[in-house]
Amino acid sequence: MANRTAYFVSDGTGITAEAFGNAILAQFDLNVRKVRLPFVDTVDKAHQAIRQINHSFELENNKPIVFTTLVNPDVQAIFAQNCKGMVMDMFGSFVRPLELELGAKSHHRIGRFTDISKSKEYSDRMEAINYTLAHDDGQSNTDLASADVILVGVSRSGKTPTSLYLAMQYSMKVANYPLIPEDFERQQLPPALLPLKKKLFGLTIDPERLSEIRNERRPGSRYASLQNCRMEVSEAESMMRRTGVSWLSTTTKSIEEISTTILHELMPERMAGR
Amino acid sequence: MANRTAYFVSDGTGITAEAFGNAILAQFDLNVRKVRLPFVDTVDKAHQAIRQINHSFELENNKPIVFTTLVNPDVQAIFAQNCKGMVMDMFGSFVRPLELELGAKSHHRIGRFTDISKSKEYSDRMEAINYTLAHDDGQSNTDLASADVILVGVSRSGKTPTSLYLAMQYSMKVANYPLIPEDFERQQLPPALLPLKKKLFGLTIDPERLSEIRNERRPGSRYASLQNCRMEVSEAESMMRRTGVSWLSTTTKSIEEISTTILHELMPERMAGR
Repeated sequence: MANRTAYFVSDGTGITAEAFGNAILAQFDLNVRKVRLPFVDTVDKAHQAIRQINHSFELENNKPIVFTTLVNPDVQAIFAQNCKGMVMDMFGSFVRPLELELGAKSHHRIGRFTDISKSKEYSDRMEAINYTLAHDDGQSNTDLASADVILVGVSRSGKTPTSLYLAMQYSMKVANYPLIPEDFERQQLPPALLPLKKKLFGLTIDPERLSEIRNERRPGSRYASLQNCRMEVSEAESMMRRTGVSWLSTTTKSIEEISTTILHELMPERMAGR
Repeated sequence: MANRTAYFVSDGTGITAEAFGNAILAQFDLNVRKVRLPFVDTVDKAHQAIRQINHSFELENNKPIVFTTLVNPDVQAIFAQNCKGMVMDMFGSFVRPLELELGAKSHHRIGRFTDISKSKEYSDRMEAINYTLAHDDGQSNTDLASADVILVGVSRSGKTPTSLYLAMQYSMKVANYPLIPEDFERQQLPPALLPLKKKLFGLTIDPERLSEIRNERRPGSRYASLQNCRMEVSEAESMMRRTGVSWLSTTTKSIEEISTTILHELMPERMAGR
């Protein structure tokens, strides 16, 4: 496999440049050393970044691949003129055609937070994170009616990371509730959830995988035994089927895929960008 | 302001398409209705997505702006031929030039999770999230030595959301510890942290902003009073200065900016992509 260095250069955090660059690089069989250079927002910092990139070029005798999201035209120009890497100018490539289509100039503003204190978006996000932490693992029934989604599923089916992801990325208030042997005996959802059926979404998981995960935490326990995992998963799935709760299996899904599927099914209106 | 509809179309979750598209759209003064269409991974789903997009075009008499991250060549071709929106083909635009530079073909694989059970990346991420939740707000001193970072700061300075973000996005084990009046009286960091000074990073915040945030939770309390916030922030800052702990002010920063700055300063090697 070929070896290359990839740089993600941004005048902001570089998170978008990195996510996008990684998605592109994943299309190739490459050994890539990856370096993110955030906050390159002055001419000086641009020259410094270019020195580092050009140094890689000299060492490796291969053009570094440089993904940039730069809005400052001076910084852009310095990259265009001096960078010996292969520059993938992500903003330039799309902003110019859009200016033509919209008949408007872009304003070259860096995607940076400036006035957090007045930002409703920011306080909604904080509230969502606090709510979600306080409602993790059935900890609290207080104010369940304010939840955007209530995740249910057996212990270790992926509820906590999914809840936190939805809160962090979509400012959603998420409660999550474990389905436990008592619920299976009663053959009913936890009583606090019955009036909120429309908000429920179930997570399930392959019993073999569940047993593996539980064995990492409590090796050799009844809780982790394959037999018990099979029973719990089967009971949980029939309960969700019976009560008409939508659900998905997390076995082969990333947190991002689980979260996207939940949004898509439960609240398609939230599939709009923030 | 002009009105448009923007679509983010992907054969995966569409998270990257949306993040990138939003960054581009933020360069314009536009009222944008945003729609994410994830999992468009078959010819049928491509035609369905295009029907929806072309319907917007007919209703609005303006080309919808369509950001795509599609790796399947059949699906790409259907978009190129039938979509009446302005298609910003994010993969096509960069993958082809890269194929030339690398002298290699891309393999058109969808960025999707397939074998979670064998993925070390996945289990590291879960472990980081569990660790971080268990070590939120000074809850536990167990295994503090395993932390990648320990955040310190006064109550409500942004430690919890930053910790969760670092765990979720970078699989970092993060502990966070409140600095409380007792610490200020002793004029020392919490004792459990003294041997771990190299892992510490401080968050501070403008006292006026802190008082606002605390007043939302406990209106009119001494805890939230501007006078008390001024005292706590000043004590915390002098303690960090005295003990040589790096720190930043969260007042005008997003969680992403705080996290990027911490990574950049404390563990630059982690600025590499996952």
